[in-house]
Amino acid sequence: MNIGIDVGGTNLVAGLIGEGGRVLIKKKQPTKAREGYEAVTGKIAALVEQVKADAAEYSVDSIGIGVPGIVSANGKTVVSCPNLYWENRPLKRDLEEKLGLPVYMANDATVAGIAENRYGSSRGCSDAVMFTLGTGVGGSVIVGGKIITGVHGVASEFGHMIVGDGHYQCNCGKMGCLETYSSATGVIWLARKRIEEGRETVILSMAGGDPEAVNAEMVINAARNGDAVGLECFESMVEHLAIAISNLVDVLDPEVCVLGGGVAHAGAFLLEAVQNATAEKITYKRLVKPEIVLATLENDAGLVGASCIKEYLYD
Amino acid sequence: MNIGIDVGGTNLVAGLIGEGGRVLIKKKQPTKAREGYEAVTGKIAALVEQVKADAAEYSVDSIGIGVPGIVSANGKTVVSCPNLYWENRPLKRDLEEKLGLPVYMANDATVAGIAENRYGSSRGCSDAVMFTLGTGVGGSVIVGGKIITGVHGVASEFGHMIVGDGHYQCNCGKMGCLETYSSATGVIWLARKRIEEGRETVILSMAGGDPEAVNAEMVINAARNGDAVGLECFESMVEHLAIAISNLVDVLDPEVCVLGGGVAHAGAFLLEAVQNATAEKITYKRLVKPEIVLATLENDAGLVGASCIKEYLYD
Repeated sequence: MNIGIDVGGTNLVAGLIGEGGRVLIKKKQPTKAREGYEAVTGKIAALVEQVKADAAEYSVDSIGIGVPGIVSANGKTVVSCPNLYWENRPLKRDLEEKLGLPVYMANDATVAGIAENRYGSSRGCSDAVMFTLGTGVGGSVIVGGKIITGVHGVASEFGHMIVGDGHYQCNCGKMGCLETYSSATGVIWLARKRIEEGRETVILSMAGGDPEAVNAEMVINAARNGDAVGLECFESMVEHLAIAISNLVDVLDPEVCVLGGGVAHAGAFLLEAVQNATAEKITYKRLVKPEIVLATLENDAGLVGASCIKEYLYD
Repeated sequence: MNIGIDVGGTNLVAGLIGEGGRVLIKKKQPTKAREGYEAVTGKIAALVEQVKADAAEYSVDSIGIGVPGIVSANGKTVVSCPNLYWENRPLKRDLEEKLGLPVYMANDATVAGIAENRYGSSRGCSDAVMFTLGTGVGGSVIVGGKIITGVHGVASEFGHMIVGDGHYQCNCGKMGCLETYSSATGVIWLARKRIEEGRETVILSMAGGDPEAVNAEMVINAARNGDAVGLECFESMVEHLAIAISNLVDVLDPEVCVLGGGVAHAGAFLLEAVQNATAEKITYKRLVKPEIVLATLENDAGLVGASCIKEYLYD
């Protein structure tokens, strides 16, 4: 049996994962990233010990850990993790020394894709991609049942695929990144811009008259109700996501494309729009009907996916 | 030892490939695609028999065949091959019946990528992509030493990635395909457009005053000599190719990206421009210096690559 760990900027969560991806034991603690790498890894180790203490009846074989940053190709080092102020930290070695168990590590969006593939919406598919649509846009690629992480550990960074001329300069420094159109941040940016331009929209009243209070849910709900600005923002999000998905089909031709993350809580309204926009952009329409689905796992996906990382690594 | 077959719209070539990718015996015949599937497969079988007759001293283990179309995910069927008027043809079975040897089949751009990986510019790299820049734009993806062909056989169709708003409608029906910017066809299209608009350019005199006679080499040579229209066409080709390469890095993060095909004969002038344009678009510039190189194999790459298909398939 394996323990999964979800390292977030706010919380650390560790859990023992049983049959069918059931979380048998779960422990949680604030990350307090400002305290630094040594303090945070100490807390992670302590959480694991708490889980093990409660799990005395089970044998724990290994630890899997998902981190919100770039993991080196060999899975040993956190190359960069700005939320936690980590740069080139040998997390695998450090945790293995503290815990006396093998540790397997991957990026958190990759871990979300693993969770969906092992227990969720893409179960049984050997070739699956996943978009995590949140504050940013993350990605996961599984081919032949293994994750693709790339030679520098920066594969499946779907959020930075260039899919347009650019709304605004992305955090990465580029223009035209998918993330600037199809993340919550991108959707909110466009809605605020239209509000600043003086366009009438229900979004402003939904936000209590404060443009700073606009969130992606408001924009999508406005679109759902036919508000013109809401629809423009929603359609821009969907169109650019459809370009990215159709480009991925041209590269990988996967069995299924999963949409997850907070923005995907828009549900069938989003899913149908993305399915329709993507179908128009597929190259071999006669041969390929892209299977696009919503993620089905909830909050524990990070834990559950982390516990399965080992199965998804090349030997 | 294996026999490789390169099926082209104009010629069929079969060869026995020895150590280091050396072509030991080679036989060639016009395809005459209009004669139909039965006639062409008969000619392929006859060519193989000719090679085997001359190769009596060697034992032939298997046949590899590259076709200019879509090969099914299981490698058994030519799903679509417009140049040869083939649709859903069970070529693997038909050739195995005629030849009594195992037959392995792949798309010709994938085969070019295999050849470069086994004996050429990306030798020794387990993760490599290749762009074949010719009349169209083909692609090849190798991850972990295996080719990615996709669940419908349409992976690595880089030419149809959407990388702009669109010059003209692509053969596939879409707007904005890489092929409409960065193939010979795309480059020629833009040069002719500028000529029609009355722009002065040396390209027209290079083409003897006939816009229909413009070819990609003329446009690139004009760019090399500082001609404004030539430079505009060249830069458009390079910029859109750089978007595609940087997007591929965001998806796959490969070790090396190979540029091949007729357009790549522009050599260092093209290579340096693509390297510079791509470097600007890479997401994690501090971590990733994309290795972009020119293909090194010449005309026999199709034969040589075909002879190695088997090694690049998942078991």
